[in-house]
Amino acid sequence: MKLYSYFRSSASFRVRIALALKGLSYDYMPVHLIKEGGQQFSPDYKALNPASLVPALQEEDGSVLTQSLAIIEYLEETRPEPPLLPKDAAGRARVRALALSIACEIHPLNNLRVLAYLTKTLGVSEEQKNTWYRHWVETGLETVETMLVSDARTGRHCHGDVPTMADVLLVPQIFNAQRFNCRLDHVPTVMRIHEHCLTLPAFAGSVPAEQPDAE
Amino acid sequence: MKLYSYFRSSASFRVRIALALKGLSYDYMPVHLIKEGGQQFSPDYKALNPASLVPALQEEDGSVLTQSLAIIEYLEETRPEPPLLPKDAAGRARVRALALSIACEIHPLNNLRVLAYLTKTLGVSEEQKNTWYRHWVETGLETVETMLVSDARTGRHCHGDVPTMADVLLVPQIFNAQRFNCRLDHVPTVMRIHEHCLTLPAFAGSVPAEQPDAE
Repeated sequence: MKLYSYFRSSASFRVRIALALKGLSYDYMPVHLIKEGGQQFSPDYKALNPASLVPALQEEDGSVLTQSLAIIEYLEETRPEPPLLPKDAAGRARVRALALSIACEIHPLNNLRVLAYLTKTLGVSEEQKNTWYRHWVETGLETVETMLVSDARTGRHCHGDVPTMADVLLVPQIFNAQRFNCRLDHVPTVMRIHEHCLTLPAFAGSVPAEQPDAE
Repeated sequence: MKLYSYFRSSASFRVRIALALKGLSYDYMPVHLIKEGGQQFSPDYKALNPASLVPALQEEDGSVLTQSLAIIEYLEETRPEPPLLPKDAAGRARVRALALSIACEIHPLNNLRVLAYLTKTLGVSEEQKNTWYRHWVETGLETVETMLVSDARTGRHCHGDVPTMADVLLVPQIFNAQRFNCRLDHVPTVMRIHEHCLTLPAFAGSVPAEQPDAE
């Protein structure tokens, strides 16, 4: 498999963790989101992924998968061991809801093109942009914290004591939060789980600084 | 089952369509997102869903499911007929990628609290807010259009000739687009599928105007 990835992209980071947890090897295909006006907009990359977003996963047969959560669900279906979703439908729904609380409520507000629209089109200041970033991360993680503390199924990880899709989404979001100096002392359960995840090689080896295109 | 819903919420609209496609009946529990400062912030509702978002689905045993896509995946697992995902892993990944292209790339930028932040906190004008709304809908749907026209698996619906999770996400997004007068003539495949969906009772009966809390 080939993973089209940018070291700092948290959606790429999610798929790197999922691949590592499942022990799958792949060729790392760097796509620089800033250089050359954004390599994701090149004709070659657009032919692979018309959305001009990373990550994209290319299978041996040439087929291309996009959208990090769809890729992770696909890996779960085609390489089920070890599982990243619990066995029971209610547990699976809880893990997916935690993952989507990050993927739909926090991350989309803070990606590169949204921040660019704020500063370039709406003319907001750097400080206002950073406040926007922190607002969505801090309030969004507060919701995740409440979901975690109010449910007995939370363990060393978001759901029990083994990593699931929820942890796979959580860790990259915390990296983003730390990069933008977001407040995190109000989400102790989130941070406890984050720190535990980073003791595992699949998470530690997938961080931006460990990637071949890291700067 | 009880569905906590707001007639105009497109995330609620998605779950209404999925329930209807599967022929499942439910009690409609209206949650008004504007009245009384937003009923989703009431202590009673927060006890059900700490995220203060609609929809939430409550099962007969009292368990509560949140996040529209997690709810739809749960329905797919617990009430598999008729399926809302194709049988093959590659097809399932494609349908999920289409759904997530709407759920993660378009809708989060246009929900109520984000629009409120733009006007109240950042002080942007009504006109700038509407331009923001249309920008993300029009560019996001253009990506969806490209994904549809570039793939032979597109049929009368997004994936083949029967409704899937992708159609379930598409129709509510078009309702939002039309409400904000977005340009739609650049996405003819999207609109062809949208209009076909609305000929089906499961879609037509789930539209905002047909809900008990419609205004």
